Amino acid sequence: MPISPSQAPEPMLLRHDVSGVCTLTLNRPDQFNSLSLALVRAVRAALDAIACDPTVRVVVLAGAGRAFCAGHDLKEMRAHPDLAFQQTLFRECGDMMVALTRLPQPVIARVHGVATAAGCQLVAQCDLAIASESARFAVSGINLGLYCATPSVALVRNIGRKAAFEMLATGDFIDAPRALQWGLVNRVVAAAALDESVAELAGKLAGKLPEALAAGKQLFYRQLEMGLAGAYQAATETIAQNMMSPATQQGIDAFIDKRPRG
Amino acid sequence: MPISPSQAPEPMLLRHDVSGVCTLTLNRPDQFNSLSLALVRAVRAALDAIACDPTVRVVVLAGAGRAFCAGHDLKEMRAHPDLAFQQTLFRECGDMMVALTRLPQPVIARVHGVATAAGCQLVAQCDLAIASESARFAVSGINLGLYCATPSVALVRNIGRKAAFEMLATGDFIDAPRALQWGLVNRVVAAAALDESVAELAGKLAGKLPEALAAGKQLFYRQLEMGLAGAYQAATETIAQNMMSPATQQGIDAFIDKRPRG
Amino acid sequence: MPISPSQAPEPMLLRHDVSGVCTLTLNRPDQFNSLSLALVRAVRAALDAIACDPTVRVVVLAGAGRAFCAGHDLKEMRAHPDLAFQQTLFRECGDMMVALTRLPQPVIARVHGVATAAGCQLVAQCDLAIASESARFAVSGINLGLYCATPSVALVRNIGRKAAFEMLATGDFIDAPRALQWGLVNRVVAAAALDESVAELAGKLAGKLPEALAAGKQLFYRQLEMGLAGAYQAATETIAQNMMSPATQQGIDAFIDKRPRG
Repeated sequence: MPISPSQAPEPMLLRHDVSGVCTLTLNRPDQFNSLSLALVRAVRAALDAIACDPTVRVVVLAGAGRAFCAGHDLKEMRAHPDLAFQQTLFRECGDMMVALTRLPQPVIARVHGVATAAGCQLVAQCDLAIASESARFAVSGINLGLYCATPSVALVRNIGRKAAFEMLATGDFIDAPRALQWGLVNRVVAAAALDESVAELAGKLAGKLPEALAAGKQLFYRQLEMGLAGAYQAATETIAQNMMSPATQQGIDAFIDKRPRG
Repeated sequence: MPISPSQAPEPMLLRHDVSGVCTLTLNRPDQFNSLSLALVRAVRAALDAIACDPTVRVVVLAGAGRAFCAGHDLKEMRAHPDLAFQQTLFRECGDMMVALTRLPQPVIARVHGVATAAGCQLVAQCDLAIASESARFAVSGINLGLYCATPSVALVRNIGRKAAFEMLATGDFIDAPRALQWGLVNRVVAAAALDESVAELAGKLAGKLPEALAAGKQLFYRQLEMGLAGAYQAATETIAQNMMSPATQQGIDAFIDKRPRG
Repeated sequence: MPISPSQAPEPMLLRHDVSGVCTLTLNRPDQFNSLSLALVRAVRAALDAIACDPTVRVVVLAGAGRAFCAGHDLKEMRAHPDLAFQQTLFRECGDMMVALTRLPQPVIARVHGVATAAGCQLVAQCDLAIASESARFAVSGINLGLYCATPSVALVRNIGRKAAFEMLATGDFIDAPRALQWGLVNRVVAAAALDESVAELAGKLAGKLPEALAAGKQLFYRQLEMGLAGAYQAATETIAQNMMSPATQQGIDAFIDKRPRG
């Protein structure tokens, strides 16, 4: 259920929690869920709240209406033509993107429609993504004379350099099968099967030991920025500490004894 | 048209400019366009000239004759057996490769035939590449006892590690569809359609705002060498500055008003 | 032939050398070749010996029995519940993985069956891998509450981030064709053709100039951890020194003269 009282104006970000799966829905459908500074801050605040909410096991990021997310709010950007506003907007948006990777819980993008510019960046920055066959992806700012600099950071960490450069320099759309082939999303399903597919993956992740998943996700992104030997040192500490967890020890003992994990 | 007077010997590098698209053609067809030190220096000088030439929007790198480029000039290398020559040759060649990534304009490799060793490196180091179905790719120095060390730098930044290691250690050729699948090239087309495909992509890029593309390309390669948070900081500055451009502001205003970009 | 006398208990690591190809076989088939601390140390000792053995041109890493390798020895880990043991186990295992990349000779994983957790890590960390159609891959520790932290280091350096995150967070298996598509292995062949395919690739590598391959492999991993300009500097030194080898000079001269390499 939305967190807003029914009399108030519809909030721009909806939160809906079921069985440990927290769905955040970008809710500016008439603006194609464009990321105004206020929406960036709402997403960031929601992530900060979720980070210390032990009832949340998995986060799903979705969009209301026809589009997943069409990037930033160009009208707002033009209404604040000063450099300081642009720096604030993109710095806070970048910080929110980094917060997705620092969140203890895994985040799945549920991409039912168009994802462009910062919307494509959101898909790339989420840990996992499931797309409908009708989803389409572009970093199309260059068509307006605004190179998608911040989206490029997430995009090229998901797909190959030649493909990323082409998308950024041409602004052209790719379809969902191409996005799957290149590694931007994990699965492509029929539109009618999208919710079921997201629920299946989210449910699977919700069944894992949360502290193991949290420590693992933190290590995943941290070791990516290290050389091989340093990465192994960091990973050694993570896995050794993970072994000290009583729940992990019970899980291993159950496996050894061929019992289901407690 | 070649820049040389018709009486002079054919230059080893041709430059041909049409509508903002500058085609550089390696022109040592009898030597399969092998990269002698003189040719490396000619390419570098051409890139340096293009970097400050506002009439050039896009660069196409092509090869004359049957091959795209067969690597370095082995006869020249053997004629200068001293270490200092080899160091000079490979240092200058590496500097030229880095210059491809630092050029403000995007560079498309037009690969109509064989691209081996430093020829394969050129394809990998260009921002974009379109290959004919008859193109073939190898880093085959190991077959002569000379591991393709400098080509490996560009290759493994385009394709996966296992695939790159196999190409480097076996020296085996891959065909154009495989190169496309692995991410070494952006498109594979019939030989008869190669010029049309290159012209279509180049024309599309030539229509973008040059300063946005230049700042974007610089950021693309720079942020790749940073951690995620640092990359977002760099990208924030790039996109905020991009927003200060009057041409960008006009492009956005036209989009908001549903007019074509001025 | 195994190096143990026939009366002694079967050693946990077998070494078999033929024509420059050294096959190391993990030999704990009843434990699915799980990497006990003793087996980690045996592999490391074998690698250290091979590193200074000029008769070895190529290493093949294989597993005895039904599985390739099912990760670490969970019973042993539970029998030593202290943090210090876990740290020692994973540090020494990580050091052994790094040693695979520092070995002068190329290493091919021969994957005939299941490769899970540190077994999947071994496949990812080897320079090359050939899988049987019946091989399957997972980093499944999360199913027991133990995130595959150390395997993640090698895995995400082979395949895309989205795919790696999914494997690590779900623990799900992928089959051999998927592993090929994602870049975890180089080839997938019918089970009956596995030995022939491994022998063909190993034989090809054994025919290359060993010092060129060794210097090239060292450079391959070293330059991956550098920025582009630094990587080219390192590669320049490697290839210039490679050119000083008389065997390389002979190979190039033979090529120029269209003779077979001496």
